[in-house]
Amino acid sequence: MDSSPSSCGGLVFPGLVGVSQAVGVAIVVVTGVWLGHHHGGFAWDGSAHQFNVHPLCMVLGMVVLYGDAVMLYRVFPRESKRNLKILHGSIHLLALLVSIIGLVAVFNFHRVAGIPDLYSLHSWFGVLTICLFLAQWLMGLGFFLFPGASSWLRAWYLPLHAFFGLFLLAVSIATCLTGITEKLLFSIMETYSLRAPEGLLANSLALLLLLFGGLVGVMVTREEFRRPPHPEEEALSVHFTSLTPSSP
Amino acid sequence: MDSSPSSCGGLVFPGLVGVSQAVGVAIVVVTGVWLGHHHGGFAWDGSAHQFNVHPLCMVLGMVVLYGDAVMLYRVFPRESKRNLKILHGSIHLLALLVSIIGLVAVFNFHRVAGIPDLYSLHSWFGVLTICLFLAQWLMGLGFFLFPGASSWLRAWYLPLHAFFGLFLLAVSIATCLTGITEKLLFSIMETYSLRAPEGLLANSLALLLLLFGGLVGVMVTREEFRRPPHPEEEALSVHFTSLTPSSP
Repeated sequence: MDSSPSSCGGLVFPGLVGVSQAVGVAIVVVTGVWLGHHHGGFAWDGSAHQFNVHPLCMVLGMVVLYGDAVMLYRVFPRESKRNLKILHGSIHLLALLVSIIGLVAVFNFHRVAGIPDLYSLHSWFGVLTICLFLAQWLMGLGFFLFPGASSWLRAWYLPLHAFFGLFLLAVSIATCLTGITEKLLFSIMETYSLRAPEGLLANSLALLLLLFGGLVGVMVTREEFRRPPHPEEEALSVHFTSLTPSSP
Repeated sequence: MDSSPSSCGGLVFPGLVGVSQAVGVAIVVVTGVWLGHHHGGFAWDGSAHQFNVHPLCMVLGMVVLYGDAVMLYRVFPRESKRNLKILHGSIHLLALLVSIIGLVAVFNFHRVAGIPDLYSLHSWFGVLTICLFLAQWLMGLGFFLFPGASSWLRAWYLPLHAFFGLFLLAVSIATCLTGITEKLLFSIMETYSLRAPEGLLANSLALLLLLFGGLVGVMVTREEFRRPPHPEEEALSVHFTSLTPSSP
């Protein structure tokens, strides 16, 4: 297989991991600068400064930490599957907790300011995403970490879990893009079309979110980056390649 | 394999195709009702009625036709690969042309109304998506329809083409969501939070777009829905499963 396309994976993958992590850090930093510099920073006092906690927590939880948890199996191919499962579930739990803090921040800000909840496309998508994420996390726990599920059941659920995991990352990022659009039109409706610096900064944040999603997507779907099964796992568990039809 | 999870594919797939097509029609109808009933309908006279052509063309071209072209290989598994390639490229070309009409509509409306172009997140993502779509279409033509590309080159490019095809559908849908958010905040900023009927209708359109993307994603990524290779294609061309590592 040395002359096959997959042989380039060893050189490309570490680069993709590095770029994705740099983009992840840039996402959090740019969000912090946007809300810190242009909207007065962060607080937990029911004011607009508390609202600023919401975007920061959502991009950190629902995009960066979530994406890192998704790509974990590709980044540490030599780690045991059990350890990876525990780390995958733990990072997702952290992502979920950070996201819930972000949700509490905005609901509490709305309550104090007398702003209605859950009328916008952004809020509908946000609530849908977090509910599906919670369901996905609980099902992952039940199927893959508790010992009750049979190999057949795990084999059946694994590709669904992987598909919906990546689908939810895409929906998370799309929800962030609608949130950025909302925030800009609420804040700088008059100057956005004059290419105000805040608008350019937030548009760039959106491009970084897209790039992060694309990088995670490439890393977890390209065949040559798949985690090779460990021999001792063959009889104990299931892995992705066992689910593909054998070549005719 | 009759007892494997994949054996349910035969029952599920036609249902998914049917639902996706119903959702596709609903997307176009709801967009038409939204802009027809709440924004005065369609025209090509530089007015706001011309703007209305933009969302209709974009959901039809960049989502519904694009998605149908993507899932074609799964829907007609017994058709020859050459015919499918021609139909795939043709529907994508139609999607591209419809999208270009939608772009001309909005740029022309902006010019007449004196509204600046390309300042918003939505416009940046829209232009990026259409440029990448055009590049993807030209590369697909060059690699898969013209006879010059070697089997090795086709095998190398096919998974990239498939990944970026689905990635661009996701970006298209995300761009539509930002466009719907923009249009609602420009039009009904005051009543959106009071759950104005237009807001609920447009939010529902966004959910339909998400559902369509999810259905196409499931159909083209689930292993059991893959097109089995025809015997005569084995020596002539490449297909998806030949790119997966053989099971250990």
